Amino acid sequence: MSDHPTPRRRPTHDAMASLLRPQRIALVGASDKNLFSRRAFAQHSRLTGARPITLVNPRTPVVHGESTVTSCQEIEGGIDCAFLLTPQAATVDALRDAAAGGARAAAVLSQGWAEDGETGRAAQAELVAVAEELGVVLLGPNHLGFANLWDRIAMCALGLDMPIEPGPFALITQSGAVGSSLVGYAARNDARFSYVVTTGNESMVTVADVLDFVVDDENTKAIGIFAETIRDPELFRTAARRAADRGKAIVMLKVGASELAAETAKAHTGALVGDDRVIDAVLRQEGVIRVTSVEDLINTGMLCAHTGPLRRPGIAVMSVSGGACDLIADQGSAAGLPLSAISAETAAKLEAVLPPSAHPQNPLDVTGAAATRPEVWRGAFEALAGEPEVGLIGAVTSLPTDGEPQRVDTFRAVAEAIAATGVPGALLPQIDQPQSEAVRQAKADTGIAIVMPGVERFVRAAAGLSRWSSWLQERAATASRPSDHSSSRVAENRSLDLALTGSGPVSEAAARGLLTGAGVDFVPATLVSSREDALAAAAGFGGPVVLKMSSPQVAHKTEIGGVVLNLDGAEAVGAAYDQLVARAEAAGVTLDGVLVSPMRTGGVELLVGVTRDDDWGQVLAVALGGAMVELLDDSALRVLPVSRNDVATAITELRGYPLLTGFRGSKPADLDRVVDTVLRVAEVAQALGDAVEAVEINPLLVDGDRVEALDALITRAEP
Amino acid sequence: MSDHPTPRRRPTHDAMASLLRPQRIALVGASDKNLFSRRAFAQHSRLTGARPITLVNPRTPVVHGESTVTSCQEIEGGIDCAFLLTPQAATVDALRDAAAGGARAAAVLSQGWAEDGETGRAAQAELVAVAEELGVVLLGPNHLGFANLWDRIAMCALGLDMPIEPGPFALITQSGAVGSSLVGYAARNDARFSYVVTTGNESMVTVADVLDFVVDDENTKAIGIFAETIRDPELFRTAARRAADRGKAIVMLKVGASELAAETAKAHTGALVGDDRVIDAVLRQEGVIRVTSVEDLINTGMLCAHTGPLRRPGIAVMSVSGGACDLIADQGSAAGLPLSAISAETAAKLEAVLPPSAHPQNPLDVTGAAATRPEVWRGAFEALAGEPEVGLIGAVTSLPTDGEPQRVDTFRAVAEAIAATGVPGALLPQIDQPQSEAVRQAKADTGIAIVMPGVERFVRAAAGLSRWSSWLQERAATASRPSDHSSSRVAENRSLDLALTGSGPVSEAAARGLLTGAGVDFVPATLVSSREDALAAAAGFGGPVVLKMSSPQVAHKTEIGGVVLNLDGAEAVGAAYDQLVARAEAAGVTLDGVLVSPMRTGGVELLVGVTRDDDWGQVLAVALGGAMVELLDDSALRVLPVSRNDVATAITELRGYPLLTGFRGSKPADLDRVVDTVLRVAEVAQALGDAVEAVEINPLLVDGDRVEALDALITRAEP
Repeated sequence: MSDHPTPRRRPTHDAMASLLRPQRIALVGASDKNLFSRRAFAQHSRLTGARPITLVNPRTPVVHGESTVTSCQEIEGGIDCAFLLTPQAATVDALRDAAAGGARAAAVLSQGWAEDGETGRAAQAELVAVAEELGVVLLGPNHLGFANLWDRIAMCALGLDMPIEPGPFALITQSGAVGSSLVGYAARNDARFSYVVTTGNESMVTVADVLDFVVDDENTKAIGIFAETIRDPELFRTAARRAADRGKAIVMLKVGASELAAETAKAHTGALVGDDRVIDAVLRQEGVIRVTSVEDLINTGMLCAHTGPLRRPGIAVMSVSGGACDLIADQGSAAGLPLSAISAETAAKLEAVLPPSAHPQNPLDVTGAAATRPEVWRGAFEALAGEPEVGLIGAVTSLPTDGEPQRVDTFRAVAEAIAATGVPGALLPQIDQPQSEAVRQAKADTGIAIVMPGVERFVRAAAGLSRWSSWLQERAATASRPSDHSSSRVAENRSLDLALTGSGPVSEAAARGLLTGAGVDFVPATLVSSREDALAAAAGFGGPVVLKMSSPQVAHKTEIGGVVLNLDGAEAVGAAYDQLVARAEAAGVTLDGVLVSPMRTGGVELLVGVTRDDDWGQVLAVALGGAMVELLDDSALRVLPVSRNDVATAITELRGYPLLTGFRGSKPADLDRVVDTVLRVAEVAQALGDAVEAVEINPLLVDGDRVEALDALITRAEP
Repeated sequence: MSDHPTPRRRPTHDAMASLLRPQRIALVGASDKNLFSRRAFAQHSRLTGARPITLVNPRTPVVHGESTVTSCQEIEGGIDCAFLLTPQAATVDALRDAAAGGARAAAVLSQGWAEDGETGRAAQAELVAVAEELGVVLLGPNHLGFANLWDRIAMCALGLDMPIEPGPFALITQSGAVGSSLVGYAARNDARFSYVVTTGNESMVTVADVLDFVVDDENTKAIGIFAETIRDPELFRTAARRAADRGKAIVMLKVGASELAAETAKAHTGALVGDDRVIDAVLRQEGVIRVTSVEDLINTGMLCAHTGPLRRPGIAVMSVSGGACDLIADQGSAAGLPLSAISAETAAKLEAVLPPSAHPQNPLDVTGAAATRPEVWRGAFEALAGEPEVGLIGAVTSLPTDGEPQRVDTFRAVAEAIAATGVPGALLPQIDQPQSEAVRQAKADTGIAIVMPGVERFVRAAAGLSRWSSWLQERAATASRPSDHSSSRVAENRSLDLALTGSGPVSEAAARGLLTGAGVDFVPATLVSSREDALAAAAGFGGPVVLKMSSPQVAHKTEIGGVVLNLDGAEAVGAAYDQLVARAEAAGVTLDGVLVSPMRTGGVELLVGVTRDDDWGQVLAVALGGAMVELLDDSALRVLPVSRNDVATAITELRGYPLLTGFRGSKPADLDRVVDTVLRVAEVAQALGDAVEAVEINPLLVDGDRVEALDALITRAEP
């Protein structure tokens, strides 16, 4: 990656454990005058049963009301980890002292490093070099530390409203300021953390390292990430897969989707955000739930942590407010929330518990009756839970306040229904509202685990949870199927090596050869070297033909008039042949020959290509052809390797997908054959590996069960 | 409209004033046992300086600790308005008593009316009939009343957390439950109301009537509406235009955008939500800011109420958190927030106030320096305010809490900059947070008026405000230009009347005649009635031609093979002519003749049509043609009459719009000519009025400066 010129050394699991689960901790540079020091000490003091820390200050014997030591080396028994609050210039010395005191890990809070121009970058490189020499793993610099709530460690200067009760949600954030805001929001909404880790400049420890570590933490049930960049793509993917194996959701707010944000991020941290379309593809592919707001990061993460993967991906919602039902329907539709339809059987059950004026629908208006009769909530919940698709039920209700005890009855009724049915349920107010003390008490009294801030936030969180749950099910189903294609044809294809001596494009004929060898069907073509052979080939095909130059010197044939379409009759074919030869000569191009193919019309044109991304390696693109589609940028990406299911899903993501399924009476395409072809292209690209820059079929003509490449381009990498 | 079989009588302004600004009020059916009565009385009691109310209960002499009277007729001096809390069955009697006591208006809270099946609908019809006979205007039934905060009137059973300090924002909501949630949210976020009116079943007073009334209220600076249906479209539009004249924003959450919501709304209130695409077009056309969440309704409304129309529509945002800047860029890009670019001059000013590591961008990272040096906020604000496009500046900062006084300094610094520059500014935290007492105090102390809940909510609200401000400017500019087209050619076109005797489609030749008469350019065509004439016409055009049936009996020619394309040479033309005549005969169709036209290829095909909507009358649609576009449903609607600017904007809304502006080297279209043509079609439809069901040109071929109708269809209304 561009901002890691040398390959990074990944911290070991032991190093990460020294950092995030230390037994003995020093706060170096502790000072009453330092806001961050005050905050870090105050944070530590909030934690009941906190692991002991030692304050280090060479000049002041008492800080924050505690005795200090002058050096880490004075600390009896040594330390595992140091939190360096020292100014930037004093950091290297402090690090050496910490290492001499036994520290195998350190968190560096100060600013003035890579985020701060050329000098800062050099200073950071030196800091890392010293740390590597000392065998110390570094968190930061330019961050706010971390908290490990189960082990009662708060080595951080995050906001003092951070919830200190341990919980199921690990939060990883590159930005310390965003982390501080997030923990405040979590506190207001009763979200609880296993870990909160800020990674800052990621000089050694990156988001991926922390993810990799917390995925294995048994207290962590879901992980939230706020990041501008993913610095170790390979580790990120590996860790994401392990999270999926364990049924732990990863929810990610990856900023830099817009060009402006990419510029902004580059300006203030020097981080390159990467190609957002590729990152989006990776996140889809690995089942990461991508969110677009900090609020959704917390809400979706906490919901997933509470429920785990839903056994059934459908959602039902009920409310005393008809207006809320309308809103849920509109917002659910926009967010892709799968609101399950109500069967006749469930409708009958609902009619038995609801007043006659109620309509058995989803979202369900339980009517004003539920306000005074909690058993209506219970009955409606149980009826909805009987619906075979429903895996989560939301109940929109006013939250308890002092002096309105009937609202606690709603909590109790829903809690009983959850216990009776085994289907998880969430309570939520209609409009954004933090959780008051009365709500927390009602949760504790009734055993309700999930209260969400409001309809809009619930809808988005539940949509993410549901999508992820379906993805996990599909993943399990795919894994249990026998391998559905083999790459043996590619492996045995000896022509691969031969074609790739040299650089730049290979000729179209060579590209055809490679891909045909891998099992891709092409429109028939004859490579000819004379006018006579061209005429003979055209006559052999019958009907109109196409003539094209074939030469490794021409990547984009149309640009030099290298393609002549729709040639009917010997005269036209002969003239076109002569024209192509003349144009090639004029352009200084040496031809392999001229390709003669039958002319195709109709059908849907796809583009299938594999290119190379600096961060993520080979990326497969499937797109619809034509100007209108290009205008709409209708393509779907996947990072290689891909499964059959990955490809099939990518194709359904195209907005023009209905064109392949018989839109307005057109012939439905043989999608299996399309998927096969895409997989073959991917296999060829993988087999060629670093030797190629790009492999592309454009267009792939899809016309019912005819799936034919009309043109192909393979570009070799520069040596 | 379908749920108003008889034309409604609009309440007069005086009637609305009796209802919403009464001097003397009765609470009829007041009872300690009734939750709504307790709440209404408690709400009233919260209002300092409230207008006096009299409690009416025939059986209980003391209610809510106050003496009651047994009838409205006992009230000395009479009443203007009664709030009827009586049960449904007792309502008509209570209404007669109130009228006898002088009431000219009443609000009916009870349920069991039109929302509750056939019997309820009949009861509501009877209630309305009685009210009309008595000359009383009715609010509700099935609602929660209203509050008029400036006049200190709270005739409502809304949540007791409703803010009681009067303010600039009028809220109108069909749903009482949603209204109750909204006022709670407003209280948590320090939003303040002039009016809160719930309209429920709208038996007489609809959202449009209340809108029409509050638009003229001088204390009201912006209006928010939550509605499932708009029952008086004409009044709604008139009132919206008056709001625009006065620079008062209307913000609307119109539910029913999704099919599911439309079903849901129909189920629980019997309201038909209308065609959402048409409603969306109307809202755009009238400058109404449409939002999709209840939170956005309050936040956008309050922001607009505070700022009024922005003089300059650009937005700048600054933050101490780089992460927040990234988020604002991403979320701003998604919401269409116009983040102004920073000029070199402004950059120089910013560099003078910011630390060297800062980058002069928008969103602007003011860096950690601003946390301790409030003058950085002021300097940055003043620099950004000097940017000629910037009309509003957001400052993302931690909000004051007890014991962190430096955050009040931020408020003070921004307040000074606002005063110095005259550019409005908003303060906001990064993540959703209600306004604490400390924040309210800081606002009062510093004069800061606008604090928003968080970045995401601010971005959406500011995007709406900016869009509306631009729309107002464009509207003013259009109004000051001389009328840019005349409909005289249409008015003089005598053929209109002639063509419209009868019903169903007119022949293509007649449609061409009508539209050509109005100034629409068509591809040349000759109407022929013999093979010989067809051959002559084809020869006259030279090159390939098209032959089409012309008959009033055929609306969709292609369905019966009534069009033959691309005919080259006499043989092909003659054969096609014979074919068409034979097909017409086979289909039992009498032809006017056969149209011969030159064949056109290339260019972009548009569809331009006017149809009739039950609620909103004639609706103009502009769409791109072709299968891919149909798949994407790429069309823009406008309700007639339309201005030149309406049409131009509609065309730019098409996703395929770049195809008209020279996408990938294609010829840019003569957009003026396209707009002219669309206006002509609209004029013809308006001139024909109720006599036509639909007027359509499909396709309108646009190829550079050639803008030609290739086919037209006019369908007459059933008599």
